[in-house]
Amino acid sequence: MKPFMDKDFLLQTETARKLYHEEAEGLPIIDYHCHLNPREVAEDHRFANITELWLGGDHYKWRALRSNGVDEHFITGDASDWEKFEKWAETVPYCMRNPIYHWTHLELRTAFGIQKLLNPSTAREIYEECNEKLRQPEYSARGLMRRYRVEVVCTTDDPADSLEYHKQTAQSGFEIKVLPTWRPDKAMAIENPKAYRAYIEQLSQAAGCEIHSYADLLDALQKRHDYFASLGCRLSDHGLTEFYADEFTETEVDSIFRKVMDGQQPTEKELGQFRSALLLEFGRQDARAGWTQQFHYGPIRNNNSRMMQLLGPDSGFDSIGTPNTALQMARFLDRLCLEGNLPQTILYNINPADNEMLAAMIGNFQEGPVPGKIQFGSGWWFNDQKEGMERQMNTLSLLGLLSRFVGMLTDSRSFLSYPRHEYFRRTLCNLLGRDVENGELPEEEMPRIREMVRDICYWNAKRYFRF
Amino acid sequence: MKPFMDKDFLLQTETARKLYHEEAEGLPIIDYHCHLNPREVAEDHRFANITELWLGGDHYKWRALRSNGVDEHFITGDASDWEKFEKWAETVPYCMRNPIYHWTHLELRTAFGIQKLLNPSTAREIYEECNEKLRQPEYSARGLMRRYRVEVVCTTDDPADSLEYHKQTAQSGFEIKVLPTWRPDKAMAIENPKAYRAYIEQLSQAAGCEIHSYADLLDALQKRHDYFASLGCRLSDHGLTEFYADEFTETEVDSIFRKVMDGQQPTEKELGQFRSALLLEFGRQDARAGWTQQFHYGPIRNNNSRMMQLLGPDSGFDSIGTPNTALQMARFLDRLCLEGNLPQTILYNINPADNEMLAAMIGNFQEGPVPGKIQFGSGWWFNDQKEGMERQMNTLSLLGLLSRFVGMLTDSRSFLSYPRHEYFRRTLCNLLGRDVENGELPEEEMPRIREMVRDICYWNAKRYFRF
Amino acid sequence: MKPFMDKDFLLQTETARKLYHEEAEGLPIIDYHCHLNPREVAEDHRFANITELWLGGDHYKWRALRSNGVDEHFITGDASDWEKFEKWAETVPYCMRNPIYHWTHLELRTAFGIQKLLNPSTAREIYEECNEKLRQPEYSARGLMRRYRVEVVCTTDDPADSLEYHKQTAQSGFEIKVLPTWRPDKAMAIENPKAYRAYIEQLSQAAGCEIHSYADLLDALQKRHDYFASLGCRLSDHGLTEFYADEFTETEVDSIFRKVMDGQQPTEKELGQFRSALLLEFGRQDARAGWTQQFHYGPIRNNNSRMMQLLGPDSGFDSIGTPNTALQMARFLDRLCLEGNLPQTILYNINPADNEMLAAMIGNFQEGPVPGKIQFGSGWWFNDQKEGMERQMNTLSLLGLLSRFVGMLTDSRSFLSYPRHEYFRRTLCNLLGRDVENGELPEEEMPRIREMVRDICYWNAKRYFRF
Repeated sequence: MKPFMDKDFLLQTETARKLYHEEAEGLPIIDYHCHLNPREVAEDHRFANITELWLGGDHYKWRALRSNGVDEHFITGDASDWEKFEKWAETVPYCMRNPIYHWTHLELRTAFGIQKLLNPSTAREIYEECNEKLRQPEYSARGLMRRYRVEVVCTTDDPADSLEYHKQTAQSGFEIKVLPTWRPDKAMAIENPKAYRAYIEQLSQAAGCEIHSYADLLDALQKRHDYFASLGCRLSDHGLTEFYADEFTETEVDSIFRKVMDGQQPTEKELGQFRSALLLEFGRQDARAGWTQQFHYGPIRNNNSRMMQLLGPDSGFDSIGTPNTALQMARFLDRLCLEGNLPQTILYNINPADNEMLAAMIGNFQEGPVPGKIQFGSGWWFNDQKEGMERQMNTLSLLGLLSRFVGMLTDSRSFLSYPRHEYFRRTLCNLLGRDVENGELPEEEMPRIREMVRDICYWNAKRYFRF
Repeated sequence: MKPFMDKDFLLQTETARKLYHEEAEGLPIIDYHCHLNPREVAEDHRFANITELWLGGDHYKWRALRSNGVDEHFITGDASDWEKFEKWAETVPYCMRNPIYHWTHLELRTAFGIQKLLNPSTAREIYEECNEKLRQPEYSARGLMRRYRVEVVCTTDDPADSLEYHKQTAQSGFEIKVLPTWRPDKAMAIENPKAYRAYIEQLSQAAGCEIHSYADLLDALQKRHDYFASLGCRLSDHGLTEFYADEFTETEVDSIFRKVMDGQQPTEKELGQFRSALLLEFGRQDARAGWTQQFHYGPIRNNNSRMMQLLGPDSGFDSIGTPNTALQMARFLDRLCLEGNLPQTILYNINPADNEMLAAMIGNFQEGPVPGKIQFGSGWWFNDQKEGMERQMNTLSLLGLLSRFVGMLTDSRSFLSYPRHEYFRRTLCNLLGRDVENGELPEEEMPRIREMVRDICYWNAKRYFRF
Repeated sequence: MKPFMDKDFLLQTETARKLYHEEAEGLPIIDYHCHLNPREVAEDHRFANITELWLGGDHYKWRALRSNGVDEHFITGDASDWEKFEKWAETVPYCMRNPIYHWTHLELRTAFGIQKLLNPSTAREIYEECNEKLRQPEYSARGLMRRYRVEVVCTTDDPADSLEYHKQTAQSGFEIKVLPTWRPDKAMAIENPKAYRAYIEQLSQAAGCEIHSYADLLDALQKRHDYFASLGCRLSDHGLTEFYADEFTETEVDSIFRKVMDGQQPTEKELGQFRSALLLEFGRQDARAGWTQQFHYGPIRNNNSRMMQLLGPDSGFDSIGTPNTALQMARFLDRLCLEGNLPQTILYNINPADNEMLAAMIGNFQEGPVPGKIQFGSGWWFNDQKEGMERQMNTLSLLGLLSRFVGMLTDSRSFLSYPRHEYFRRTLCNLLGRDVENGELPEEEMPRIREMVRDICYWNAKRYFRF
């Protein structure tokens, strides 16, 4: 009987344990995609208590609470912080086999040094111990980042964002790089003309230029793109339902833009054309700047209208769609490739039924000199758990080159999510260790396998993104 | 070498064995969805022989026989019962690794106490031993239910059904609850106007009211719904190709209904509107009654027209479709939720490629006070086997709360299918035991894990359905 | 620690080892689907060096090289054979966990007796040792086939092909059967009228008859079909994006044919009708001849237009699509079945998300007297690796009869791919051995299990195809 979550957690063979403890464990973290609040880093935020840190915005936990029959009052409602924590402590034992059970205890151990299991009988003491620690200076936002040996963090930011907090953080001399990521989803969201017009107004102000035409829009975006680059941005990110690669002319796209700015609803065809045109421009901008573009595709969002009205988006009511977008994805990437503008690209799918499609897709556009130029991104969102990670890594292994994989990212809003890198590293070492001990990988090549671990955990990302 | 199917069958760790033998094994069975013939319970049917019991209507076995090259004469044709059994005995050794191989021997062992393996050399003696036992009174329909400690059974019934056999069974003082389930598929089947009109005639008679309009239809259905409730019905069930959530008005739906009753073929659009409207009403009715609604979606049926003409439906020519219905499913559930009419709901998919989509979907509509209000149903039909069960439980674990799962059901036409609950329980205990011994679940929480086993095998269903 | 790739490679239990070494290992190979060049067999081709043999046309390796950041110059460009081999040797250690890593070393061991691992430090000596061996007569095309105990090989050939090399091979007294396979894809490719017309011209010459109408086309095809049959052909093969089962009349199809021959572009509807008509005819022809029809469906091809312009098709830019073709597939098979013309059929999917759909589909059309008349084909293309093979065999096991499976084929252009049969056999024996030792299959039935291994590795194919 292996003890729960001991130092050899998830490591089932001697070789796996060696690979993890001797190679992976000590490496710094490059968290190249997350949703941290840049202001909290800039101001080195101090957390009132563990409820704020854990339950303040974590829609994974909110979903678990709702699934456990807990009233919304104790989730996003007016209950006290202790009451919310108490409900969480009651729910945790019902989360066994869900990744939250592991995250929770990994975070307690690695951040707070608490070995106890969270459940109703330990709730009060864990609550108090966490809160006491959170009052110490090393438990600030920056303190937590230091604790986990973070080297770089890339947040997710709108083109109209001033990036003032990124500047403030950089100027403060904080030794960890906190870089912006270009996420221009709103610039494409013409499906709501009123909100779009308001957004274009913001963008116009941020860029310091008027936007009356599609060409103006591209100019403004380019100005902001340059500005992001000047602050160290190296990646873009796009949240898509599906890929777009329809036929269009610049004239058509310009008149769609004007129509929407006039407050008129675009047709389905126009939506497709506009998105196809702009997505291509995004790629071109990134190619010119030498950035990496990321695509997170496939979710269906805000499925519960009642809760959307109450709580707004990102509250735990998003879901896995069944996008059927292979052909459009191929066509989109091909267009960029054909004109010599295909940037480094990372593709993340939300439906794991697409894993094989995606792992095969990247192979169509690989080319030197960058190894692994097109990447199949690590298990995203609902797939960010042991089985999801294993499936992504196995599929990538079988259809591409695992050794060129840029590895893990947290995609998280929380300063406590860094143990996910540990979890990922353990999972990776376990797969490789098992293969070696099974005779499926050669022990003679252990130096190469050790290097492969170091590469996937750290060096591939470092070389690929060139921060 | 572990002996075949011994008392620790499928239980690979000591902890798994403890969980099964100490917790799961002795619990009664709540079989909340099946297709037993209520008449056979009411009349406490005696089986002529093992051929009737095993091969009389089991399309899984028929498919296996056809795949093995056996002539239809020995499957659904005029061959004698012994000849049919003999062909089955010849086929069984070719079924290794198919769940039928396990079901067959589990049934022989648990029902008849026969430890022998079925194959041509044992066929005759097994045939005779089974038939001799079937002549004993404890091998009647009710006897078999008692043997497996069944507590509740829910059959599947049409709204126009008189439920006379359910009443007869209840009045007989039979200690096992045999309750109807409301399956109103025919009320939605306007794609065939002639058959639909005939059905509405039946429904009208059963409800004791005229049906000339869509409003009349809803009235009649409500009368029958109340009647089903009066006989203890607590669930509905719907067989769908996909989900329907189109836009419609009551006026449109009423005129579609009248058009079809006039013998005219509805258009595709009308089909979608009518189904969308009625599906919503079914949900409302269940919400008012406090029932649980079930959806079995995704099969493509009667794919072999020649055999459909010869044998009719449900003869082993149905298959797994590739429904792309996530958005419609979300919209349908959202409509009910928005108006406060979302009943407890169980969703079953036939294509396991939808597992993750479904496990994520239920999370959008969970809400207190019922834990696990929306359920991802146990591996259905082609997925009702060890790998299918494991995949369903693993996906539910990773994306939701396994601990709130209402567990297994047979979905069977046979009085011999109860060992599937044993199979399920062993599989569940094996997953949990392995996790504990791997250090992925804490041994300190064994009391909670034991309770989780008891809950999933029995108590969750008991509390959820409130029979 | 199990040594890498020793004699018990992939065999994790004692029973697995027994099954492999005592039953599977020594059986001859029936390679019923491949893409060998018939001319190279006829002329008993000698390979200039290992670069020609390994890297001359293997798009799997080309993809791996591109993924590893190698310049196209060293892949399909003008670099010398040694330079290309050197780049390959540098890439191989980065292929760990990809099936190529296993194929490479299996081929080195079984063909050349080289136990060393390929990497930059061994590149030169392995290059020279291979090349030296390739100069020996037993390393000719035929020599390699003999080395692997091949009994039958089926190539893939166009109806307009003269099959001169098949005749030449047969007349030479070569003891291994090298048979043609009927692959009439070009006869259906009306989407490009110009190329189609040119092809029809070729076909007309090959058949020795004029082709002016759809009826003429069918006549010409039948003549060629008969000719293929006269040279021992027993299979057809079809590469499809999806299945076609639209409504059409003979008159419509004839006018579509004439229109295309006139140089006009057919509409989408016409494409569907023509393909539906011709696909049905292909099935009828095979049924009359007692052949087996094969369908490889679902890829999306030539996704990289730039490389398509440079290198043409089949250069490593094809990918996994997400076909949604279950209903059309069912309808197509049903049409043939209904008219009594459904031949033996093997269905291969490229997207493993379709595995369950396909394994269920075949069950709809099974019928005696041929066991396993409709087959779910072995893991194809991207799925031709250990996990892909295991998933295909597990799904087939659970939804059909593994014991009736006709087993492995190489689908390869290379004379070195026969170790894939070894790989497959080891994987199969490992699955069965594990089940026996786990108590999931009965040790008492070992004679049946041994026979099952022999059947799947050899005898099922032998009986099924009747070469």
